Amino acid sequence: MEPKIIKTKDEMRAWSRSIRSQGKTIGLVPTMGYLHHGHLSLITQAQKHTHHVVVSIYVNPGQFAVTEDLSTYPTDFHGDIQKLKSIGGVDVVFNPHDLYDYGVNTTTTEDININNNNNNNRGETVSCLEGETRHETWVRVEGLEKGLCGKSRPVFFRGVATVVAKLLNIVEPDVAVFGKKDYQQWRVIQRMVRDLDFAVKVIGSELTREEDGLAMSSRNVHLSPQERDQALSISRALFEAKSAANKGEKIVGGLRRSVIESIEAAGGKIDYVEIVDQESLEAVEEIKNGVVVCVAAWFGKVRLIDNMEIDVL
Amino acid sequence: MEPKIIKTKDEMRAWSRSIRSQGKTIGLVPTMGYLHHGHLSLITQAQKHTHHVVVSIYVNPGQFAVTEDLSTYPTDFHGDIQKLKSIGGVDVVFNPHDLYDYGVNTTTTEDININNNNNNNRGETVSCLEGETRHETWVRVEGLEKGLCGKSRPVFFRGVATVVAKLLNIVEPDVAVFGKKDYQQWRVIQRMVRDLDFAVKVIGSELTREEDGLAMSSRNVHLSPQERDQALSISRALFEAKSAANKGEKIVGGLRRSVIESIEAAGGKIDYVEIVDQESLEAVEEIKNGVVVCVAAWFGKVRLIDNMEIDVL
Repeated sequence: MEPKIIKTKDEMRAWSRSIRSQGKTIGLVPTMGYLHHGHLSLITQAQKHTHHVVVSIYVNPGQFAVTEDLSTYPTDFHGDIQKLKSIGGVDVVFNPHDLYDYGVNTTTTEDININNNNNNNRGETVSCLEGETRHETWVRVEGLEKGLCGKSRPVFFRGVATVVAKLLNIVEPDVAVFGKKDYQQWRVIQRMVRDLDFAVKVIGSELTREEDGLAMSSRNVHLSPQERDQALSISRALFEAKSAANKGEKIVGGLRRSVIESIEAAGGKIDYVEIVDQESLEAVEEIKNGVVVCVAAWFGKVRLIDNMEIDVL
Repeated sequence: MEPKIIKTKDEMRAWSRSIRSQGKTIGLVPTMGYLHHGHLSLITQAQKHTHHVVVSIYVNPGQFAVTEDLSTYPTDFHGDIQKLKSIGGVDVVFNPHDLYDYGVNTTTTEDININNNNNNNRGETVSCLEGETRHETWVRVEGLEKGLCGKSRPVFFRGVATVVAKLLNIVEPDVAVFGKKDYQQWRVIQRMVRDLDFAVKVIGSELTREEDGLAMSSRNVHLSPQERDQALSISRALFEAKSAANKGEKIVGGLRRSVIESIEAAGGKIDYVEIVDQESLEAVEEIKNGVVVCVAAWFGKVRLIDNMEIDVL
């Protein structure tokens, strides 16, 4: 089955409403494209829960700081469609051209990226969307957005929460599926949906790894063979931490240091390694309830994230 | 016709969905209760545009700073229901008891109000909702929320936008009506709905005045007879400004000073008098496009707002 490709907000909403008026349910899988097996597992989740599946493919300028890799983020729309066709069961690819288009004075993403300065006049980091667009509404999940990736990417979760709010309002799905690879993102969306009473069920889908353990990511394509090899240190360190915890090591300090040392020994540059409560994402000193070890590290010019849940048995 | 009273989010959404599944449309009129003729005119607007009308009555702690008048905000639920019954044509009063209730550790509004400090530990003003609730998601309309009432009420529009986002997601109306008395609020909501792609049409309903010119407001009940008399200076000054502009006075400085002087001469304490563009709400120096003169002033312990649109003919 070839998915129907929808390019505008109005057509998307009309499609969803016609489906829902038939009493059928819709699952949404938001992606930025360059699909890999991780994405496909999200689609499988959506298919399990709903009659129809919409995959959105949209590289969202609102979640990239102007200093980040929006312009080099990998895209392959034609290849994505082929993959979706081969797995089947995807009804619509929503690839909006007008997501931040409000009728007047709009510019393309490229213009925005080129014309923008790195900072606004208040000295704050700005996203690739600001300065050249009239969009001014942002959804902030003020607690969960702060730590982990929020520290080095101050506009990221604001941008993610906002674009997901827009997608939920346009697609009006019954279920939306997010990967637990982006653990903090999943929790931010879950909290936003709860706090703003969106009528959607959020499903977190387990992280998918390559056979050698590397967490699947669209950004992996930018790794050199050597960097890719070094990057295996992340998952190795995470599995070791989980194993140590399961054997009785409950003090977080030592577990965290081991993860840092393993990644650094392999040549990675740590952004953060944190062991946090699974729900609040606040750092813990001792493992009493379920925690998640979260890692962000650079290998060359590529920033990778990964995580490992440790449940208390 | 006696309106059906709905107290929970789940029941509200179920009612709306059953109505919509019959192909009927729903209009929402969000209020904080203590209904007056201004509210009733909003309801009339909603009735013109939709098959069924929901009036929400909810004093939203999220939009009051802890230093503001949440605890003395006037309420009269029984009287409100009587008024709605007498005008007829209101299907549902949504008076949620669980709007910020997420299942665990919740407290009542009163607890929140009493237990909270005036400021959080970052020195920022906090709303009556914070500190005692697990709600942490806020919708910010970052440009429009800053000026006018946003200056002296820093949590107000964040609270309004957030509660309206929640109500839209719960009630799922086709149309929502807001009074232009709260001009900045109307523009903030309009912008939020546009930027987040809510599937609702926002209607601004003209300001309603008492026979002597005072803008209708639930807070008017707190004015002493003398203060009420003094407060007429606001509408008088606004009509005079409009008349002067229509006679050719296009320079804002003098118009603005006249409004300030008239209100102060009557004993009012100015919070702000601004002449701003009707859409951007940015101050202008000369009237070229449509503007609105916005006033907030204190009479005794009561803060009143009012405004006057001046269109360029």
